[in-house]
Amino acid sequence: MKTVRVGFLGCGNIGCGVYGVLKEQADRIAQDEGLRFEVGPILVRDKAKKRKSDIPSALLTERPEDVTDNPDIDVVAEFMGGVEPAASLIIRALRGGRTVVTANKAALATRWNDILAAAKEGGAGLLFEASVGGAIPVIRSLTDSLQANEIRSISGIVNGTTNYILTRMADAGLSYAQALQEAQQLGYAEPDPAADVEGYDPVYKLSILATLAFRQHVPPEAIAREGITAVTASDIAAAREAGCAVKLLATAKRAGGRILAAVRPERVPVSHPLCGVKDAFNAVFIDGSACGEMMLYGRGAGDRPTASAVVSDLIRAGHGGLRLPPVHGEAEVCGGLPADGIDDE
Amino acid sequence: MKTVRVGFLGCGNIGCGVYGVLKEQADRIAQDEGLRFEVGPILVRDKAKKRKSDIPSALLTERPEDVTDNPDIDVVAEFMGGVEPAASLIIRALRGGRTVVTANKAALATRWNDILAAAKEGGAGLLFEASVGGAIPVIRSLTDSLQANEIRSISGIVNGTTNYILTRMADAGLSYAQALQEAQQLGYAEPDPAADVEGYDPVYKLSILATLAFRQHVPPEAIAREGITAVTASDIAAAREAGCAVKLLATAKRAGGRILAAVRPERVPVSHPLCGVKDAFNAVFIDGSACGEMMLYGRGAGDRPTASAVVSDLIRAGHGGLRLPPVHGEAEVCGGLPADGIDDE
Repeated sequence: MKTVRVGFLGCGNIGCGVYGVLKEQADRIAQDEGLRFEVGPILVRDKAKKRKSDIPSALLTERPEDVTDNPDIDVVAEFMGGVEPAASLIIRALRGGRTVVTANKAALATRWNDILAAAKEGGAGLLFEASVGGAIPVIRSLTDSLQANEIRSISGIVNGTTNYILTRMADAGLSYAQALQEAQQLGYAEPDPAADVEGYDPVYKLSILATLAFRQHVPPEAIAREGITAVTASDIAAAREAGCAVKLLATAKRAGGRILAAVRPERVPVSHPLCGVKDAFNAVFIDGSACGEMMLYGRGAGDRPTASAVVSDLIRAGHGGLRLPPVHGEAEVCGGLPADGIDDE
Repeated sequence: MKTVRVGFLGCGNIGCGVYGVLKEQADRIAQDEGLRFEVGPILVRDKAKKRKSDIPSALLTERPEDVTDNPDIDVVAEFMGGVEPAASLIIRALRGGRTVVTANKAALATRWNDILAAAKEGGAGLLFEASVGGAIPVIRSLTDSLQANEIRSISGIVNGTTNYILTRMADAGLSYAQALQEAQQLGYAEPDPAADVEGYDPVYKLSILATLAFRQHVPPEAIAREGITAVTASDIAAAREAGCAVKLLATAKRAGGRILAAVRPERVPVSHPLCGVKDAFNAVFIDGSACGEMMLYGRGAGDRPTASAVVSDLIRAGHGGLRLPPVHGEAEVCGGLPADGIDDE
């Protein structure tokens, strides 16, 4: 039995979810994987704050270096969200040789080169399955299952909030404003919904997916972006007339030596597997030179689906022998796709 | 750069496909993974037979022990198909300490305990991503991505031939006999189609999936089996009236301490993601305690999709550090499911 000591940076919904799943499955993970996880210290902003989880207060700290610089810690799991201070703490932990597991697409996409350089410098592992698609094993599939393929294109519904809004507009005839309000009431959308509805969140995720798929860095600022705020009930009706649904697609494809990459509302034919992805579900559609067409579908958010991905990364970190994803320099990115939909070539 | 020497057992369509993909992607795999594959010897029944691939005849042998007992070989890749002599050769190679990569669901399902025991005895790795679902990374997802989950159920369309036949009956109004004939003309169905249409092939695959999902051995002989030969055009019409399609589902679920497992035609509601899986595509739907509902979809057969999975296994074998899947004894299996479809609880 190997003991793996994990420090947390942040302990909101996801951190509490990971803590809960690790505790609930501890005996099974020990039996099946030969690993025992010990959690702590856990960085929080305010030790006195009431938490959903039964985390002992002795594990909490308000000093980041108790986690990032702690010689007793094998793995640092980051759940703070946002670019800073998360990115700086990830970089600090990696430089110190600690493997980092993160769900933070914004930090990862925005600071990709700095984070990868820190991992190389520290000889540390970096795992981020939960950063895209929640529980769906899309990162692992790109890095560990599709290596025999030249990926031709990757196209995803990777933002549950906007997919919920578009689904409700189509299925219940709601206006954009009504559907947004409903999503906010259900907790799917934030009070300030810009990160989702303006497409920033899926741009971060597409940056990560495209970088892994094409093995060249596709920075978020090179990706064309159009949100769903201008989608109207009549757009959706017209799409339906044409045998399509409107989906916020995050798509990247090869075109000669360049990568075309955009997040924008697109018409998806009902015959396409992405069309049936409803509500807050996510899916990623991949076309590879050997595998052909493939789709991975599941819950893209929520504390337990995200914990499913994070814990699989922690187990992988516990087994050791990690390799950083192969990425060779900067891609030449054209932030835009031809306008004729997802089936164009 | 690490050189990995791979011996092949068998060299039909899949073997030639793997040879071709390894050759075509050799430089990229070397750059990205740090691995160079050298193939040979290759066991064939008749060295003189004309092959689709440009494999040098010097690599061919008709003596199995040139592969299974070869001290220069790191990995044995088995593409013979069928239970024997494949299973015996797999066992021999594993006992000798050679990692085995196989696409052979029949050998694996039928001789699971013997094969796993041989791998333990020899301290050898065993990888079989291509045995279920072709290119779809379903095996890896169960073993490497969903370890934090108690799997509640797994349900798949894992036989492309029968899915093609049922799709054509539904979409083109063909009779079973007409659709079978068309599938045979297209090469989707064998001249003797029993393994597919009687459900033996999906039983083998369900045995492997359920064993990994529930971490207890679910032997194929315990799985209830009903093929599609009795499905009529009026069954399909009646299902459509009820808002469903008829699919040959391979389903296993927990029920108390037992596993219910069956392969049989079932009505799938149009709202369920499995309903949209058409033609020769495969998909596996998983419900886990943390991940919730997930589906993996793609090409379940064909030389290149299968090679995509086999080459990912070869790369994984090349990196080393393999662990055998955790399976704890024999499951108590009830070969049957409640009759009220896939959404029952």
